[in-house]
Amino acid sequence: MTTILDESVCRAWAYLSRVAEPPCPQLAALVQSVGPVEAADRVRRGLVNDELARHTEARREIDRAAADLELLAQRGGRLITPDSDEWPLLAFAAFDGAGARPRVGPPLVLWAQGPVRLDDVAQRAAAVVGTRAATPYGEQVAADLAAGLVERDVAVVSGGAYGIDGAAHRAALSCDGSTVAVLAGGIDIPYPAGHSALLHRISRHGLVFTEYPPGVRPARYRFLTRNRLVAAVAGAAVVVEAGLRSGAANTAAWARTLGRVVAAVPGPVTSSASAGCHALLRNGAELVTRADDIVELVGRVGEFAVEEPRPATALDGLGEAERQVYEALPGRGATTVDEIAVASGLAAEHVLGPLAILEVTGLAERDGGRWRIARARSARAAQTSRLV
Amino acid sequence: MTTILDESVCRAWAYLSRVAEPPCPQLAALVQSVGPVEAADRVRRGLVNDELARHTEARREIDRAAADLELLAQRGGRLITPDSDEWPLLAFAAFDGAGARPRVGPPLVLWAQGPVRLDDVAQRAAAVVGTRAATPYGEQVAADLAAGLVERDVAVVSGGAYGIDGAAHRAALSCDGSTVAVLAGGIDIPYPAGHSALLHRISRHGLVFTEYPPGVRPARYRFLTRNRLVAAVAGAAVVVEAGLRSGAANTAAWARTLGRVVAAVPGPVTSSASAGCHALLRNGAELVTRADDIVELVGRVGEFAVEEPRPATALDGLGEAERQVYEALPGRGATTVDEIAVASGLAAEHVLGPLAILEVTGLAERDGGRWRIARARSARAAQTSRLV
Repeated sequence: MTTILDESVCRAWAYLSRVAEPPCPQLAALVQSVGPVEAADRVRRGLVNDELARHTEARREIDRAAADLELLAQRGGRLITPDSDEWPLLAFAAFDGAGARPRVGPPLVLWAQGPVRLDDVAQRAAAVVGTRAATPYGEQVAADLAAGLVERDVAVVSGGAYGIDGAAHRAALSCDGSTVAVLAGGIDIPYPAGHSALLHRISRHGLVFTEYPPGVRPARYRFLTRNRLVAAVAGAAVVVEAGLRSGAANTAAWARTLGRVVAAVPGPVTSSASAGCHALLRNGAELVTRADDIVELVGRVGEFAVEEPRPATALDGLGEAERQVYEALPGRGATTVDEIAVASGLAAEHVLGPLAILEVTGLAERDGGRWRIARARSARAAQTSRLV
Repeated sequence: MTTILDESVCRAWAYLSRVAEPPCPQLAALVQSVGPVEAADRVRRGLVNDELARHTEARREIDRAAADLELLAQRGGRLITPDSDEWPLLAFAAFDGAGARPRVGPPLVLWAQGPVRLDDVAQRAAAVVGTRAATPYGEQVAADLAAGLVERDVAVVSGGAYGIDGAAHRAALSCDGSTVAVLAGGIDIPYPAGHSALLHRISRHGLVFTEYPPGVRPARYRFLTRNRLVAAVAGAAVVVEAGLRSGAANTAAWARTLGRVVAAVPGPVTSSASAGCHALLRNGAELVTRADDIVELVGRVGEFAVEEPRPATALDGLGEAERQVYEALPGRGATTVDEIAVASGLAAEHVLGPLAILEVTGLAERDGGRWRIARARSARAAQTSRLV
């Protein structure tokens, strides 16, 4: 049963959803401390600390909560709040381990539409993602994997985009399976426009959700932010096809940060649409060739096989680009600048600067033309002596 | 300069080359202890220990040495003996670490033909191998890789077969690069017959060699035995395409046993000709997509990055199938019966019995539906606690 919320509480959540660009850890902290109604009141009146004020002052006088909720009701949608039974508590708990960093953090509240429950999905789901510029091979594989997954009661989560995302959603729908589209804008803004009908079908038979209130248009940084939710609600992120710079690689990086399994489908080495997958595979992603492989990986979700903890304190003084690059270094072994670019979602030319900073701060080290996380000297010496 | 051998020494080597099916560690030990001439004399007269007698009695009265050497001379070929400058001493030293097991061990002597020197090759070579049933994709990739390798002065070693092997040899030749065919029969027995012209070209511009004396016909076990030499003289074994049961997977297993880098080229998951490659990649093979990747791997050869030592003593009481299966278990993590079959070269149905024996002797353990090398209980407990 979904909890029935008091109207004032709903309005408070709707107001809070728009007042700061998500995720906003300061706003989340306030809501957790005083509840949504009081939090909304304080924000509206400007009675918040300086940092939260900076994040909310531009929009604090905008209150479209009533209209937003009416639009949601007209579409037969619902708010999913942290108090709701449907809130995927365990899935979002993964953000706790990822630390309070920019763009990291659970959503405040979700705008949702569709008969499938998010808490059910998060129990057993795989993200099937990839490039919009998919090849016929990639679309075929995405469809085969999605069909196989829903046959085995694994929900297919994706981003609703052209190419791989669309092929996965469509195949899941045509098998009467659960599929979930996570949007990077308002629930009333179908994006891409050419997928309006597909998104409508997903909202009737599966689930569409977003952390953005109605009317918000997708933007590049919102796609990257949205990707963390695609990764969070799925046990494994499977990249079917991706170029060397691809949003799908960003979803994979989120999955790794959140302790999810990252998997990739190999393809012809002659196809640039598989180059990102091959880079991921080199970087430790699981190689999957069929739905059964993924089912096995999703089955491991409960184990929360988070990577070895990294020295979080040393990272405190770093900027966001350095953190992104650091996160993109493999837990074991060394990797190339190109592979770091893929994993971090940064262009290769923007990776070198942060690497240099990580090197001088002793967090990363060169290994020939490759880069690795810097280890204690003794461990490195032991490793070297084994190779000689 | 190749050492000029005394005729009686040559005849002794030629006689010894035929008298036991190679590799015969007992015969090698005798030769090392008393030299080839005395060893040949003792074998001929039956003055050897029981075990060596068993290996030599069937053929000890056959002496075709003079005729074999004349045939070799007519072809412009040569014997490469352990005393020769051309003997790839470092490459064959890898057999020392692999232990005195059936079918393991360096060759006694090699029959060779071609202007390329084996010691030069072994300094910087990659084995490019794969299925005879190659697809156009696989043949194209094999040719591209071989061309890229020889351009970077890396010799291309292969087995002269149809499919991937042939594509690699041909591309290397057409770039005027060094290519080496290792035969599973006599140097005068071109196999497959359809590759007579190709093998002739290799023997004129590259190198053809074999441990079998003239007239010996290839047989299934000789291909498997030959594969160890393909692996031994190359720094890395690259499998371009291979089905789930393939001789190429056997070459890869040899490469791993000998501490060589194992690499595989990914391909479409819809192609059964890439299924063996994907299994190898899951099992820890390096993913390569272009010649530069391989050059980098071959460059690491000098490091002799042999895997962690395994408890050799516990294996002493085991049969050959159990050893093969044990060797096929990954150094780290667990694997499936199908993947063990690929890595061991045994049919899946012949893997289960040996696995059961390895389990009861405490050498392997189940991990769900997978199998792993059994570790000390404390290490296992630590690992489990990390996952929970």
